[in-house]
Amino acid sequence: MAVGLGPLATLLPVAGIRVGTARAGVKVQDRRDLVIFEASKGTIGAAVFTKNLFCAAPVHVARNHLAAAAPRYLIINTGYANAGTGEQGMADALAVCAAVAKQTDAQAETVLPFSTGVIGEPLPVARIAAGVPKALVALSADGWSEAAHGIMTTDTLPKATSRQVKLNGATATVTGIAKGSGMICPNMATMLAFVATDAAIAPNVLQSMLKDVTDQSFNCITVDGDTSTNDACVLLATGQAGNSLIASHDDASYATLRQAVFEVCEFLAQAIVRDGEGATKFMTVSVSGGKTRAECQQVAQTVANSPLVKTAFFASDPNWGRILAAVGRAGVTELAIDRVTVFLDDVCIVRNGARAADYTEQAGRKIMAQAEITIHIDIARGQHKDHVWTCDFSYDYVKINAEYRS
Amino acid sequence: MAVGLGPLATLLPVAGIRVGTARAGVKVQDRRDLVIFEASKGTIGAAVFTKNLFCAAPVHVARNHLAAAAPRYLIINTGYANAGTGEQGMADALAVCAAVAKQTDAQAETVLPFSTGVIGEPLPVARIAAGVPKALVALSADGWSEAAHGIMTTDTLPKATSRQVKLNGATATVTGIAKGSGMICPNMATMLAFVATDAAIAPNVLQSMLKDVTDQSFNCITVDGDTSTNDACVLLATGQAGNSLIASHDDASYATLRQAVFEVCEFLAQAIVRDGEGATKFMTVSVSGGKTRAECQQVAQTVANSPLVKTAFFASDPNWGRILAAVGRAGVTELAIDRVTVFLDDVCIVRNGARAADYTEQAGRKIMAQAEITIHIDIARGQHKDHVWTCDFSYDYVKINAEYRS
Repeated sequence: MAVGLGPLATLLPVAGIRVGTARAGVKVQDRRDLVIFEASKGTIGAAVFTKNLFCAAPVHVARNHLAAAAPRYLIINTGYANAGTGEQGMADALAVCAAVAKQTDAQAETVLPFSTGVIGEPLPVARIAAGVPKALVALSADGWSEAAHGIMTTDTLPKATSRQVKLNGATATVTGIAKGSGMICPNMATMLAFVATDAAIAPNVLQSMLKDVTDQSFNCITVDGDTSTNDACVLLATGQAGNSLIASHDDASYATLRQAVFEVCEFLAQAIVRDGEGATKFMTVSVSGGKTRAECQQVAQTVANSPLVKTAFFASDPNWGRILAAVGRAGVTELAIDRVTVFLDDVCIVRNGARAADYTEQAGRKIMAQAEITIHIDIARGQHKDHVWTCDFSYDYVKINAEYRS
Repeated sequence: MAVGLGPLATLLPVAGIRVGTARAGVKVQDRRDLVIFEASKGTIGAAVFTKNLFCAAPVHVARNHLAAAAPRYLIINTGYANAGTGEQGMADALAVCAAVAKQTDAQAETVLPFSTGVIGEPLPVARIAAGVPKALVALSADGWSEAAHGIMTTDTLPKATSRQVKLNGATATVTGIAKGSGMICPNMATMLAFVATDAAIAPNVLQSMLKDVTDQSFNCITVDGDTSTNDACVLLATGQAGNSLIASHDDASYATLRQAVFEVCEFLAQAIVRDGEGATKFMTVSVSGGKTRAECQQVAQTVANSPLVKTAFFASDPNWGRILAAVGRAGVTELAIDRVTVFLDDVCIVRNGARAADYTEQAGRKIMAQAEITIHIDIARGQHKDHVWTCDFSYDYVKINAEYRS
């Protein structure tokens, strides 16, 4: 059912990164469920994690390890999220790192663990540890595609892409993979994204680039408004592309690399929505005319998360009253509804807070028949804008989320 | 499908109030779609309205009229909400008041208009005006039950109840009716409640009582988190019960009357949730241990509006991970997840932020098989508490809201 999401494009290797996968039988037999990234010495890492206070043990450990040392290995298991597992969960996440460290002679602090799957069940550390040597043996510069498959849970398609840019004459590559389908699908603790580049860039610049890029990509998506306990996005930079070090945001190469990283993250973020649980439509909710970017985001999120708006889009019903009602309750102080304009693609459906005089149901229904639709809302009180990508709300969403975790 | 909502109880007349209904053909033929309340001279009124900035023309007019004069008539039509109708909508709402005033020799400012139905379509003023004489002819002290039917839209059952209390030896009656099913059901602009008492009470005391009571009744319900453009709750007091005037909150009779009004509003508010679109379960989300009541309400609303929690309850799945994940993203600063306790009725499922050691799936499933369930969450950081009433999220919710407005 994924909306406009095709088969995997060719993924470009990133100098200094090798990727290996294994079938470790973490939860079910014969499923590619363990992925290891190996980064060459000199690699630096940046990461952003879920803001949910109920966050998983591996999130705590990955955050601590990243603060303590440059990352050499990422290990990702599906099946179990190791969330809601208390002190045993912390010990288990550390044990997984130790298993990788032991096999590679690396320090445990250079290993970052990630888990996705059922919440509240203990992590089967022995099975994961037994899978580590298999994944290490499989390490390859060309392992990205298998890794994109290896981190899937309820995803119906793998999500990955690559970009190449020139930095001072050197060619730099950015490749990334992601998983996620609902924010938490039948108990699956959900969004993970791993992006790597061979560009040379200073650590603080890398971290601020990732923060900036995720704010405009992964933080602009919503399937159901529920944020996961395990969400994480990691950006590695190996420094092997041969470009001169990007030491600040003012460096001419910064914008070029940032654009490539952004395009990879934007593609992956949209791919998660396109593969949203039960999705039949991909919607961009774009809000302009705000006094701040934050209030535009607030309006866009309220519209995008409204069950009434989402079910109307599922029904291909150009129900502008529901959109306007969501704008009206978004919590923006002194927003003048009678100045609001709403477009579906290029069709104006609301002008001055009421149905546009020249709007026809026929024109609205034509747009609604499309699989991809932009809802543009102008709140006419300032110069800022922002957007959210989301999907509609169908019978299948209820079906997928009502089925018992199994 | 309404959960635990039986046939109408006997409704007690309120001295000084007469109620009439008519089949005015507002939107469809032969449906009881027009209701008029007549209040005797000396009646005072209090009201609370939707906080949605996109609010309907009748909400503006009712608010203005209530501020200008003591109310003598309420007129309610179903079929069309007169929301998103711009200046024409304001003129139409005023025209409806004028029609009532003309037939009754009352001042137009003493008429409060209410509409519920499709958003964005013009109000058929001529048909409503033609129905006014019919409704006036039908005025009766015993018209409450017909009125409870007359304000229904997608409601599957009428919602009404009565209470009687003694105030200084005098018997005072409180009777109320309400309508509402989704916050906005297929475009229906939704919750309306009309409550009347014959108690004698000062206007400012009546207004603060209504505010207090609605905060703990109608403001504690959510079906889908979407607030309507037309929500209103009106409380009339005719002063004919013979009690000595309740002039302040310190009056001994205040608490007695407040309790009766609260019980009526609580019943009506719960009835709306029990009749929630597609509801198969009625849930009370109760949060204790907050530093403020507001943060308890915030946590309860986040849990109650989580599509993942709601679909889990539809599936009778005691999915504590989803409850905890909703608590974690509720936006309560420095909430310690590892101190959170969660009960389903009397079964502890989460202790210290992880599955309770003595919890069994069997015990959880037994509770989940019930039609009415309390989710009690203790956040262990203070002495305050609050609650929300909500329902689950089923295929039928999507079906009802995806069907085109007709």
